Amino acid sequence: MSQQTRYNRRFVLASRPHGEPVAENFRLETVEIPQPAVGQLLLRTLYLSLDPYMRGRMSDAPSYAAPVQIGQVMVGGTVSRVVSSQHPDFKTGDWVLGYEGWQEYALSDGQGLRNLGTKLNHPSRLLGVLGMPGFTAYMGLLDIGQPQAGETVVVAAASGAVGSVVGQIAKLKGCRVVGVAGGEEKCRYVVNELGFDACIDHRAPQFAAQLAAACPQGIDVYFENVGGVVFDAVIPLLNTKARIPVCGVIAQYNATELPAGPDRLPLLQSLILRKRIKMQGFIIFDDYAPRFGEFLQQMEEWVSQGKIKFREDIVDGLENAPQAFFGLLQGKNFGKLVIRVGNE
Amino acid sequence: MSQQTRYNRRFVLASRPHGEPVAENFRLETVEIPQPAVGQLLLRTLYLSLDPYMRGRMSDAPSYAAPVQIGQVMVGGTVSRVVSSQHPDFKTGDWVLGYEGWQEYALSDGQGLRNLGTKLNHPSRLLGVLGMPGFTAYMGLLDIGQPQAGETVVVAAASGAVGSVVGQIAKLKGCRVVGVAGGEEKCRYVVNELGFDACIDHRAPQFAAQLAAACPQGIDVYFENVGGVVFDAVIPLLNTKARIPVCGVIAQYNATELPAGPDRLPLLQSLILRKRIKMQGFIIFDDYAPRFGEFLQQMEEWVSQGKIKFREDIVDGLENAPQAFFGLLQGKNFGKLVIRVGNE
Repeated sequence: MSQQTRYNRRFVLASRPHGEPVAENFRLETVEIPQPAVGQLLLRTLYLSLDPYMRGRMSDAPSYAAPVQIGQVMVGGTVSRVVSSQHPDFKTGDWVLGYEGWQEYALSDGQGLRNLGTKLNHPSRLLGVLGMPGFTAYMGLLDIGQPQAGETVVVAAASGAVGSVVGQIAKLKGCRVVGVAGGEEKCRYVVNELGFDACIDHRAPQFAAQLAAACPQGIDVYFENVGGVVFDAVIPLLNTKARIPVCGVIAQYNATELPAGPDRLPLLQSLILRKRIKMQGFIIFDDYAPRFGEFLQQMEEWVSQGKIKFREDIVDGLENAPQAFFGLLQGKNFGKLVIRVGNE
Repeated sequence: MSQQTRYNRRFVLASRPHGEPVAENFRLETVEIPQPAVGQLLLRTLYLSLDPYMRGRMSDAPSYAAPVQIGQVMVGGTVSRVVSSQHPDFKTGDWVLGYEGWQEYALSDGQGLRNLGTKLNHPSRLLGVLGMPGFTAYMGLLDIGQPQAGETVVVAAASGAVGSVVGQIAKLKGCRVVGVAGGEEKCRYVVNELGFDACIDHRAPQFAAQLAAACPQGIDVYFENVGGVVFDAVIPLLNTKARIPVCGVIAQYNATELPAGPDRLPLLQSLILRKRIKMQGFIIFDDYAPRFGEFLQQMEEWVSQGKIKFREDIVDGLENAPQAFFGLLQGKNFGKLVIRVGNE
């Protein structure tokens, strides 16, 4: 190992955000690279996935996963290579899918790692269309949403890593698919490149009316990964027996208090009753881990056949992770956001 | 037919309620009894079921069923006997389960009727434990709630026609069952007679704290037929992967406007996501009609074995239906509310 690579740079959580996260919530540390003991291996991060759920981990409000502790390395999915190994299942040069977080090097005991072998053509895809976001789209839409041919499926964040895959699978299943995205450029991409039937810009002043016009038969499946004004516009369009897989509520992650009244909780409850709606939250690996293999096989086939298209937004350098993450929460990225931490 | 029975008394909807229904919303009419033509039969109502959903039918807000029109007979489930028949499937004296509404006589073409034969031991049960309310409890709990032995099930309106059956089935399935009811007498009945593990009075000032204390392992299934303050107290106790069959929101039926803020709709959405909750509305005969036979067989067995107990609140005379109905919406009845319209 040369002098230049003897140190590991990593972002730790310096403080908890109040509302939108800011640069001061992160601290870039430089520490010595540890050496693997027997049963351990050392990983060098090539790609780090940035995803909206990370906002939740920065808070200590009760959630589905433990929060990152102050001073701990920020969590995140990674594609890495083995630098050195004293673990029987890994050897130097192996590609590894893991959860090593916002850092250049990581020591591991092999737990939770997936060995991808020595050859890997498109490593970053394992963080996007062939990884957690694609898997989330696949199971949430097919298992909870259960779209039937001819039904109308609405997908928020339609140009994003999850939404883009949701809509394309729904098209493969014969549905009418309407996307919601932020800005004209994203909407054009969603219709022209991804093949959705329509895409509505949620920033447009007539957004709710435009969404209604794009869904003349109402909405049978609403794949929720946004919340906020998009859900507000969806509510009156929901059909009897509509299904709502709840995968995320990015519009609400930075909220410091509830919106002003009236309290619409009883309204939602009455709606669920009157229209016999199913609304179900899910956390992809907690709920569906055993079906990852099935997903990967099907999605690799669709991708290779050109039936599922995707876009990556790759940012170079770990030091740019915080700014890229802030942009993600504001909808500024275009495609799956990945940090290229190290060069292949 | 004697002079006394030549007229049919019936309640029609005179006007739509604003908030709580009042006597003026109903009009008692006396009209001639019609004669059945070929293919028709004349029914005499013995028992009329009064149920909370009827409040919804009085309004013309969008709902899962068409509203009763002004001047139309109020709808409702009935057990009747055939007075005269020109229909091949029915003969004079047959007992019939139907949906003939708030009236003493009804003409029918046989559609939607269930012929119960000439002998029927406990006709009013077909409107309660062996009818729509029991069926609602059975399918909502077992199909949507899917209770597992050892889990905690909370049931609102626990002494009512639906809630009492939900809790007893959950006990048969090995669950810890906590009821919520209005008043000490109902709570005593729920624990001592029905065998729930606990029952909390929702009128008690420390209701939320008492409910929490009664659910030390949290809540896995909440059978929702109330809404309002009961649901508010349930929310913080819901476990990961909790299931909420939504069968009714009686606390909200008379509301004329939404409660004051803050708007907790985003809160509920976040909760569904974080805890991976399934919340699902259902309308019993629309969703489960083909399984009525399975239900009836199982429930008759449980009732005959004394495993499911029930209580009826029988009020004599059609003319008392409006007052009894107002009491039902205020939780004044104790047991399944049935009007004895005619004598056997």
